[in-house]
Amino acid sequence: MSTVGNPANIFWHENPVGKAEREKLLNQQGCVVWITGLSGSGKSTLACSLGRELQSKGKLSYVLDGDNLRHGLNKNLGFSPESRTENIRRTGEVANLFADAGLICIASLISPYRKDRDACRALLPDKKFIEVFMNMPLQLCEDRDPKGLYKLAREGKIKAPHFVGFTGIDDPYEPPLNCEIEIQLKDGVVPTPHEMAGQVVSYMENEGFLEA
Amino acid sequence: MSTVGNPANIFWHENPVGKAEREKLLNQQGCVVWITGLSGSGKSTLACSLGRELQSKGKLSYVLDGDNLRHGLNKNLGFSPESRTENIRRTGEVANLFADAGLICIASLISPYRKDRDACRALLPDKKFIEVFMNMPLQLCEDRDPKGLYKLAREGKIKAPHFVGFTGIDDPYEPPLNCEIEIQLKDGVVPTPHEMAGQVVSYMENEGFLEA
Repeated sequence: MSTVGNPANIFWHENPVGKAEREKLLNQQGCVVWITGLSGSGKSTLACSLGRELQSKGKLSYVLDGDNLRHGLNKNLGFSPESRTENIRRTGEVANLFADAGLICIASLISPYRKDRDACRALLPDKKFIEVFMNMPLQLCEDRDPKGLYKLAREGKIKAPHFVGFTGIDDPYEPPLNCEIEIQLKDGVVPTPHEMAGQVVSYMENEGFLEA
Repeated sequence: MSTVGNPANIFWHENPVGKAEREKLLNQQGCVVWITGLSGSGKSTLACSLGRELQSKGKLSYVLDGDNLRHGLNKNLGFSPESRTENIRRTGEVANLFADAGLICIASLISPYRKDRDACRALLPDKKFIEVFMNMPLQLCEDRDPKGLYKLAREGKIKAPHFVGFTGIDDPYEPPLNCEIEIQLKDGVVPTPHEMAGQVVSYMENEGFLEA
């Protein structure tokens, strides 16, 4: 394999380390947990809780948060329909890279349009995209309004020309048709972060994601 | 911490898992190894060899290859000066995410302009950006011409209107001024892939990257 003295012979490319080898090192299976739902539905709360639960089991995960990415990778994108689609496309591509690296990538974005989510799903091998729908009533999310955005939207204060509309108010949220996991009220009560994470972890354990 | 029966009280956000915790799990330090140099200088060869060497030591790395990314995350970019800059910016942002996730991210791109590389360096915490300069003579790279691109460039066949020029031929390569590692000929002989990887691994060991 030596190329000493024979520079023309260096094109031999070593076999790159493959996904399976990384997964064996980590004793888990790379995948994407894609959390979708209205603003205020608990996406970030679940993402954090799930990350912590996985860490406690010795599993490596990483959270891609829609808001955070807009400060970095997606900082040159606005909120037009095209920009929102590109925002989700890039996030899906990066999530796919993380899954290929062997990590459990937890993506947390409103991602209101079915076609954008399905495009992200299509990037991954079969069954490696776990769509989690935060199915919380709009009224509940609006009552929470953690960022004060529903109030602004109702007052018509975030309808700048570049803004397509606020999801749930003047832009639609398209619920998944075939998501892997649905988080919802139980007897009218919101599950705790720990309960929500447990629901996802149970699914992942049953599907064999938490071992290589 | 329970929010049962009190939906309005869910805004408490669990502490997200931090970089230090992931690094402890992996027993390594997240960082970016940024390999820059002419086409044909051996960037991909080093990236593969380094990835394999790290894997054999039980360390988790992931290669971001400039060409590969153009099939995914960067597939909507061409080769104008703006597009090349955006190509490198996005790669730098993703590399930063991988380093934050605790991985040793190996980025392999021609990245000919100093300002673009320095912008990527600036994204990372101090000393977490390891710039590796493949300092091989143009003549050697052109003799290798693994993709046949130098030949096309010399024949003027890749000067499409959208193309800024071919690095080394009609577009400049700006060598790093203060790179951490320089790979070069030794007594006129090209180092083997194993030797090149060893040079990088030695640096990383000395700097403490291979333990948490």
